[in-house]
Amino acid sequence: MDKTNEEYSLLYDYYGALLSERQREVFELYHEENLSLSEIAQSLDVSRQAVHISLGKARDGLEAFEEKLGLVAKHAAYEKTLKEVEARADDILKDKERAAALDPAVAKGLRRIKKLVRELDI
Amino acid sequence: MDKTNEEYSLLYDYYGALLSERQREVFELYHEENLSLSEIAQSLDVSRQAVHISLGKARDGLEAFEEKLGLVAKHAAYEKTLKEVEARADDILKDKERAAALDPAVAKGLRRIKKLVRELDI
Repeated sequence: MDKTNEEYSLLYDYYGALLSERQREVFELYHEENLSLSEIAQSLDVSRQAVHISLGKARDGLEAFEEKLGLVAKHAAYEKTLKEVEARADDILKDKERAAALDPAVAKGLRRIKKLVRELDI
Repeated sequence: MDKTNEEYSLLYDYYGALLSERQREVFELYHEENLSLSEIAQSLDVSRQAVHISLGKARDGLEAFEEKLGLVAKHAAYEKTLKEVEARADDILKDKERAAALDPAVAKGLRRIKKLVRELDI
């Protein structure tokens, strides 16, 4: 079943580097520059059919890589966990009654945890 | 330059699924079962030269995937950060003087953070 533009773009972020140069070129013109197949054909001086085939191979390739490595699915799970870590730290830091009594070293440690997690950029 | 057995095994953990079935077979017999090229040749009923070529392709493939996707390098950096998060939580929980004064809800939040991070299994 066809994926949405957004789903393909996400797969491309992870696996684009594994496609051929031509597949990357066609994929980007179609999914990121929003050109039509005919416009891409004209711009690359190839047939519309050739563009159609390259785009299909690019998409199939991206889906096959996700099937084998599953990075998109894994990373979605990581992000969920990291968001929960951040939320737990916030729960402690933002409870006003408790914050007043919070040891400054504890607050500092929690802010450091938040910063580390936020900058992890999985 | 040739990598160590351990480095190849790490690359294989990440990218083994992208190799061909024959490449995976030869790689595992050589790097995990520690068979010699001749033993593998005998066991698969192919020439020693064919085994040598498959093993070379498997290794080159793994190195090329790491060059393009860099997962091993990225994940080493993630693990370092996650270990620091855990260490920060421990710093707070294990300081005895402070622990006595620690709000139970804060201690619970920190233990939850530690658990989440430890189970992340990047």
